[in-house]
Order: sequence, then C-alpha cells, then structure tokens
Amino acid sequence: MTNHPVNEQLTKAQVINRYLKPKLAVKESADAFASSNIALCKYWGKRNGELNLPVNSSISISLGHLGSHTHISLSDTNEDQVRLNNQALALDSSFSKKVLNFVNLFRRDQKIPLIIDTRNNIPTAAGLASSASGFAALMLALNDFFDLQLDKTVLSAFSRMGSGSASRSIYSGFVRWNMGVDEDGMDSCATQLETQWPTFCIGLIKVSTTQKPVDSRTGMNRTIETSHLYNSWPQQAAEDLTSIESAIFSQDIEQLGACAEKNAMSMHATMISAWPPLVYWLPESLAVMHKVWQLREAGVSVYITMDAGPNIKLLFEEQQLSVLEAEFSTMEVVRPFAK
Amino acid sequence: MTNHPVNEQLTKAQVINRYLKPKLAVKESADAFASSNIALCKYWGKRNGELNLPVNSSISISLGHLGSHTHISLSDTNEDQVRLNNQALALDSSFSKKVLNFVNLFRRDQKIPLIIDTRNNIPTAAGLASSASGFAALMLALNDFFDLQLDKTVLSAFSRMGSGSASRSIYSGFVRWNMGVDEDGMDSCATQLETQWPTFCIGLIKVSTTQKPVDSRTGMNRTIETSHLYNSWPQQAAEDLTSIESAIFSQDIEQLGACAEKNAMSMHATMISAWPPLVYWLPESLAVMHKVWQLREAGVSVYITMDAGPNIKLLFEEQQLSVLEAEFSTMEVVRPFAK
Repeated sequence: MTNHPVNEQLTKAQVINRYLKPKLAVKESADAFASSNIALCKYWGKRNGELNLPVNSSISISLGHLGSHTHISLSDTNEDQVRLNNQALALDSSFSKKVLNFVNLFRRDQKIPLIIDTRNNIPTAAGLASSASGFAALMLALNDFFDLQLDKTVLSAFSRMGSGSASRSIYSGFVRWNMGVDEDGMDSCATQLETQWPTFCIGLIKVSTTQKPVDSRTGMNRTIETSHLYNSWPQQAAEDLTSIESAIFSQDIEQLGACAEKNAMSMHATMISAWPPLVYWLPESLAVMHKVWQLREAGVSVYITMDAGPNIKLLFEEQQLSVLEAEFSTMEVVRPFAK
Repeated sequence: MTNHPVNEQLTKAQVINRYLKPKLAVKESADAFASSNIALCKYWGKRNGELNLPVNSSISISLGHLGSHTHISLSDTNEDQVRLNNQALALDSSFSKKVLNFVNLFRRDQKIPLIIDTRNNIPTAAGLASSASGFAALMLALNDFFDLQLDKTVLSAFSRMGSGSASRSIYSGFVRWNMGVDEDGMDSCATQLETQWPTFCIGLIKVSTTQKPVDSRTGMNRTIETSHLYNSWPQQAAEDLTSIESAIFSQDIEQLGACAEKNAMSMHATMISAWPPLVYWLPESLAVMHKVWQLREAGVSVYITMDAGPNIKLLFEEQQLSVLEAEFSTMEVVRPFAK
C-alpha cells in the first residue's frame, strides 16, 4: 500500500478489485451460513468511514447456530430479487440497497441478475443485531457463487466493509478483530482464538424489540463528534482487549466478565455524555442491571454486556445457569461450545 | 504560601489558624442561614482531599429559602450537644462527629461546651443534599459566635473544608467556585455572579429518598481511581464552565440547559464507567429522563441536571411551568429570584 497518493481515500471497490480475477466465474447457486457475534470488547468508533476501519481492536464470542443463512442464485427475470426471512423486499428498501451495493462490488459491471435470499434464525426475542452475520454470510456466499477463492482473512476484511462487526462473524468461538494500520485496511481483519470454553454461557434478555430511535452508526458518529469522554475510549479499549484475551485463555470468568462489563458500560458512558445524550437504556434495562448487580453482591458470578440498544446479555458459566434461569424467566441461553 | 515545605500537605487547622486571633471572643449565641445549591457545572473530583480542593471550577444556582438554619449557644452541661431537625443526636453519630470536628477547628483547645442546633427546611421529598447548606450555615454561625470577623471569601474557603459545595452556599443566586491554584487553597473559594434571572425556575422531582448505596465522596474516589473516561472530565468541565457562565449573563436557557445537562450526564458517565459500575439512576429516574427528552423533542425548553443520586432536577423558564406541572405532578418548583 505505497503506490497510492496520500490523503486520497481509497474506495471499497478500489481495495476489492485488487483481489478479483479479470473475469468472473458464475455458479448456478451458492449457500452460506455465518454466526451472529457479541462483542466482549466493543467496536466503537471508526478511523475511516468508507472502509469501516476501527479506532480499536475488538473481541467477540460467536453465537453458534444463531445467525444468517444466505442463498444466492441466478434470477430468472431481468431484475435482482432480494428476500429477507421469506419475504420479497422492494429493491429501493434500505435493506435491499445495502445488500445490492455490496453485491455490486463483486459483480462489478457485469449485469447478472441475482436472487439474494437471507434468512436469520436469530430469535426476534433476543434483540440481537443481524448485520454482522448477514454481511458475513453474504460475503461467504459471494465467494462461493463467483468462485473468488479468497482467504478467510480477506473474506473477513471484505465483510468488514459491509458492516464492521461482520469481520468477526466469518469465524466461530472467540474471535479477535485486529484494528490494523494499513491504509487499505487489509490488515484490519479478524482471527479466531484457538481455544474452547465448554462451560461458557451467554444469557440473552430482551427488554424491547421496538426499532432503536438512533441506529448504531449514527450513534457512533454523534458520540465521536460531541463526547469529550470519548477521547479516553481508545485507551480503555486497548487495555480491556489484552485483559479479556488473557481471561479467555485462562478461563477466568471473573476477569473476563469484569472487563467485558466495564468495557460495555464505558461504551454506553461515551454515548450518555454525547449531545444530545444518547441513552439506549430503558427503565426495564436498568431494573435488570440492578438485579444483576445485586446477584453479584450475593456471590453469583454473572456479568453484563450490552450493545447500542436496550437489551442485556449476561456472561456466566454453566454452574450459575439454574440460579439465573430462576431470576430471569425470559432469558434465552446460548452455549457457544456445546456439543 | 511560600514558607511551607513542598510535598508536606497542609492540614485544615494549619490553614485556618492563620486567620484566627490568638484569643477567642465568645458570644451567648449566634444564628445563621445558608441556602442549598444545585450545581450547573459539577464539582467532581479533588486534587487535595484534606482541604477539599477540586480539579475543576464549578457554578451553581442557590435555592433561596431552602437550606439550613444553624443556632449555636453555650451548653449548660459539660458536654457538647448536637441537634438536627429538633432531635438530639448521639455525639458519636457520624453527623455529630462531622459537625464537632469542624467546630473544633475554630474552638481549638478551648473547652467551651456548645449546643449546635441545625434545622434543614429542605423538603425531604426533594431529594437534595444538605451538607452544602449545613456547613455554610455552621461556618456563618461560627463566624458570628466567635466574632471571627472573616471576609466572605474566607468564609467560603473555610466552608469548603467542611464540604466542597458548601463554598458556594455562602452566597445566593448564581455562584462560581473557582478551583484556585494555591497550596493552602485560600483562592479556592466562591464568588457571586452579579446578575438576576427572574424567570429562571428549578423543578425538583423526587425518585427515591432511600439512603444512597454509595455516598458521594466514596463515589467520587472510586470514579477517579477506576474510570479511564474520568481523564477527560476536567477538560469537559472547563469548557462547560465558560459556556454556562456566558449563558447565565445572556439569559439563554437553551445554552445554559444544554451545557448543564451535558455536564451532569458526563459526570454520571464517569461513574457508569467506574468499577464496579456506579449507577445512581433507578428505573424511575430513566423514565423521567426519557419523558423530558420527549418533551424537548416536542419543543418544550426543559433540561435535566442530576447529582450523585437518583433524583432529577429540571431547569426551565417560567413560561414552561404549566406544561411541566401537568407532566410531572410531584414536581416541586423553586424560583431563586422570585420577589
């Protein structure tokens, strides 16, 4: 990445084109699945908005069988077709536009009408974002459909251009997304942490499924532009990353949980100090949070993480499961390493 | 302040003694009143815990007739007596100890048993701290009782040693507490902003009157020791101070309200990012906050401030009063400049 003039920002297409063969191969159809993921050390802030390059590295845990299936096939009409959860969407809907803009990066100027069929098996009750698994599954399906033969790290970097956290959904288990330093962002991709933690559990507690008043991207931008406290975020995230990674390898739930909770609370703190204040928490979120803190005071080893929304995700080990299920009757449990 | 060895911290008594005459005069009794105050730019963090010297300057609005009365008189027994709201307190209670430790700074080694009678007329429903008005009223009463003849700025600096925000309760109206730079802290005292804003209103909304799980002093220390985001607080506070002061003089409720709300939210954000997280907000606090933000979206000019507790204080002008009283039926209204 030295033959590019300084200060002129690379586009997604410029970066991607270097990895594509001159002539596309096209299959009849392709299928792919990618897991959703929950960040333990959050992706919060971009140093480059075109390529989704982050200001800090992040770590996530994959949600196993919860995620997105994408099926790509040739369209039998002259038009693209975009389907989501068995429903045809208008081509000018925001979902269709995001999907097709990404597809066009790989289809390029070749007019090959496609059917892009996405199905999310993430329970709506879980209140989880689906853009991470959605873009990762789409990238994997495109790789197969156009026979791109790209490496996993390249697939991760390309998925990132669709949605930052999609870079992590290319892998399962614990995944680290390195922020990278290169101008073209090709070193800003994820790798899997080679470890299993069979007793690790995630509890999903839905507080609200109504549309967020401010989407994550807008929230991130508002925070960076208006929150003084955000200036201290990158250092916080860098320290949390190291500590969370070491806790994963030593299977230390107290260290992992404390760092992940502090990281999530700090991310929300940067939003709370934005203007106007960005408070995704609802009264019900706070009721669950205070209950978790009371349980922890009482000796239950359980920790909170939250994304840019009102829902709560609990981090704990199997031995706390019955206590927590009794306290949180609507909790949905995911065991990422269950056989 | 140059004849003191560097790195050896001055005690309260050392600072105060310089301002006291060798021999104390003693009256029969003395009376004083000081108003409570609400910070618009918060005091949050100390650079010197012995003298309560802050890391940032702050601005408050006085609550007029809401505050503390202190009556000092000679005791007819050999023992001190401490009374709070018409009840005699044990001398080893935390309230009595705080009061008597402060009294001893002025009584010094002279054994003059006193009756210290404090009455707060702050409605318990308002959820307001009384230590600011309490220490200011006590200082004013001591000044009279022992005929200390101290200047107002000295009274403000001495009150600060009892409770930081008491430095502001020596005055009424809008008050600025300058952080100061001197080692003995005698330039860390308040001054009144010479302006009146007759339409300015404060709305007190009580969410809870139960004892706070973590007191402000402990909360402040935990935040400074564990919150990365706190590193950005002093700069935030410095900018808010300037902006709030200029908004007061131009009677610009939008600028004042926005800065005061951002300042309060940023203070809470530093606590939320502490470890363990310090979240004074209750579900009911958040319900009120979201309601205020909805009203503001709908064009009502009303802003939030909060201290280290769950209760909400609204900032607005008289013309919004009827709308807000209809929305918040339990709101108690204070008009600091009402005739």
